[in-house]
Amino acid sequence: MKSQLQSLSTPLVVVDRAILDRNISKAAALAGAVGAKLRPHVKSHKSVAIAKMQMRAGAHGITVSKASEAMPFIEAGIPDITVAYPLVDRRKIGGLLDLAAAHRTLLTLIADSAHGVAAIAAEATARGAVVKVQVKVDVGLHRCGVDPSTDAAEDLARKIADRPSLRFAGILSHAGHAYMAATPEAVRAIALKERLTMLEVADRIERCDIAVASISIGSTPTVWLNDGLEGVTELRPGNYVFMDLTQTSLGVAAIAEIALSVVATVVSCNDTYAIVDAGSKTLSCDRGPHGSTRLSGYGQAFRLDSTDNVELPVVSLSEEHGFVAHGGQRLQVGERLRILPNHACTVVNLARAVAMADQDGTHEIWPVDAQACVS
Amino acid sequence: MKSQLQSLSTPLVVVDRAILDRNISKAAALAGAVGAKLRPHVKSHKSVAIAKMQMRAGAHGITVSKASEAMPFIEAGIPDITVAYPLVDRRKIGGLLDLAAAHRTLLTLIADSAHGVAAIAAEATARGAVVKVQVKVDVGLHRCGVDPSTDAAEDLARKIADRPSLRFAGILSHAGHAYMAATPEAVRAIALKERLTMLEVADRIERCDIAVASISIGSTPTVWLNDGLEGVTELRPGNYVFMDLTQTSLGVAAIAEIALSVVATVVSCNDTYAIVDAGSKTLSCDRGPHGSTRLSGYGQAFRLDSTDNVELPVVSLSEEHGFVAHGGQRLQVGERLRILPNHACTVVNLARAVAMADQDGTHEIWPVDAQACVS
Repeated sequence: MKSQLQSLSTPLVVVDRAILDRNISKAAALAGAVGAKLRPHVKSHKSVAIAKMQMRAGAHGITVSKASEAMPFIEAGIPDITVAYPLVDRRKIGGLLDLAAAHRTLLTLIADSAHGVAAIAAEATARGAVVKVQVKVDVGLHRCGVDPSTDAAEDLARKIADRPSLRFAGILSHAGHAYMAATPEAVRAIALKERLTMLEVADRIERCDIAVASISIGSTPTVWLNDGLEGVTELRPGNYVFMDLTQTSLGVAAIAEIALSVVATVVSCNDTYAIVDAGSKTLSCDRGPHGSTRLSGYGQAFRLDSTDNVELPVVSLSEEHGFVAHGGQRLQVGERLRILPNHACTVVNLARAVAMADQDGTHEIWPVDAQACVS
Repeated sequence: MKSQLQSLSTPLVVVDRAILDRNISKAAALAGAVGAKLRPHVKSHKSVAIAKMQMRAGAHGITVSKASEAMPFIEAGIPDITVAYPLVDRRKIGGLLDLAAAHRTLLTLIADSAHGVAAIAAEATARGAVVKVQVKVDVGLHRCGVDPSTDAAEDLARKIADRPSLRFAGILSHAGHAYMAATPEAVRAIALKERLTMLEVADRIERCDIAVASISIGSTPTVWLNDGLEGVTELRPGNYVFMDLTQTSLGVAAIAEIALSVVATVVSCNDTYAIVDAGSKTLSCDRGPHGSTRLSGYGQAFRLDSTDNVELPVVSLSEEHGFVAHGGQRLQVGERLRILPNHACTVVNLARAVAMADQDGTHEIWPVDAQACVS
């Protein structure tokens, strides 16, 4: 990668295409091994081109996290999209249904409240459409989802099944609390508990004579680290395309499996810090997903093209400056560093484009199609 | 603001125009009272329209934090712009000089290294131009700037003054470490130390027979809280247009002086949290500027149009979800909250537009002109 990354304007988000390819293949292999469909979450890359790579590698469809994020993928012809977010605003739902209908996209929405079910049903009815809806189950993150210790899942499945404009399409969960796990074993325990909870909820719904067409789970840690996923029919990991320091800290990935980095230039040096032109408006202040603070700094820097691989911690961020503790290394103003971020998803969200870099030192600029799609 | 904010798509960044007006006027009054020029930092709003409001209120020019951020303001005809960032990349400098020349913008750059001075001089010489350059002084943030305890400032001022293509334009500082102050008194002490340091550095440079045309300082805390700014000729606060919870925690602003908030919709409720559609991709994970973690949460929420003003803390963020601790308040799925953010600057950076709201309940959509300008 040497020549071109030394000359492009910084800060620059760079994706190593070979690592990206391997990560995409590995997810497909993991899903195949457990007999589940793969529906990657594209919130991590927001790129139509990467979504198409995932589809070519065997993904069954994609997952998005908001209505606006779905739009570039619908327009690009991705045929099967789950909006894994409880939409409750009728205009958002209606706009999405119209766009999906215009492009013949198979859309699946989710709900965890009667309010959400009614909103989707109203918009579907207004269009004479039938919309697939899954029930979101809270498996421990305590964010969205019905409480599996109650009969709320059966109740909501019944409400969906009873609406002529809706089709009950199974249950869906996200074990985001795996990101707070202290050890890989703790991640595995969370994956097991999620699976057992989901199978039990599905069984309870089926005992109400309502077929559960899909049991969908998804987070990169629990898809990578688990003791089997029998009974699960769909996986929705997202971050795995890039990986990041959060995943290495969890034991999910090795440093060599991180596909995304930020190339920055040293603009100033003092006795403690090399100051680079990547701050919180480039790297984000995330210290881990879901507000966790599992990482103490804001990234790990390496001298670009240096072979010594000495880690230089990014210890603080201003908006446009990163404070890299140089530990006595003689960094020069003008030289470039490669920074591995804490959380790749929020880095991409701040970029308009990424440089897709090949092993021969060339690159292409790929747009972040759903960048700053707001609502 | 009731009717329109209840119906717009969320999440939505909203600016209260009346508060914005008052904040802009107050900065002008503070600068006038100490006889200094005001050069607001536009990285906080990235809006040409707000920059023009600041200019109409008496600002002498504006400050930006990177070359790309300058561009929409140059193109909009803002006549006098300081790029308060040590540019060291010759192509960035050259591109900026060309754009400024095409629009007859008076540009001031800064440097804190011989490398930076040489890069600016080379590009200026290539164009037969004379470029104003200020020396950045480190007054305690330990980020960029020459060490004032050495003779580096005099050396660099001499290097600039000796170049036919450069004009030495004074000294510049940013007391960003004021954001780590425990009390308003500590902010005042930092402001005093900054002023004394800058006056001493200026005196040392002038004793080298180099005129110091400007002594420029700037941070909202030290411009708002100080015991006099005698000798300082220019102020560059930025965040004050909006204020935020960081400023209220410092004692700089009252809650009623915060002009910017995020309107979000409750999409799910459980026994602990109301989940809203504003997460880290809307509010950012900043817990304070410069990597400080002075605030424990991610914002303060209030029920929109409620008069009880009960504060509901935003205790965690996923990418598209905010976890609002409802404390037993019966929040409803579909209802709207207004969230005061920790750090307004990074919120605006994540938005494509803001709703400029008037007291009569109407609003206009204003673009964030320099949103995601990367490098």
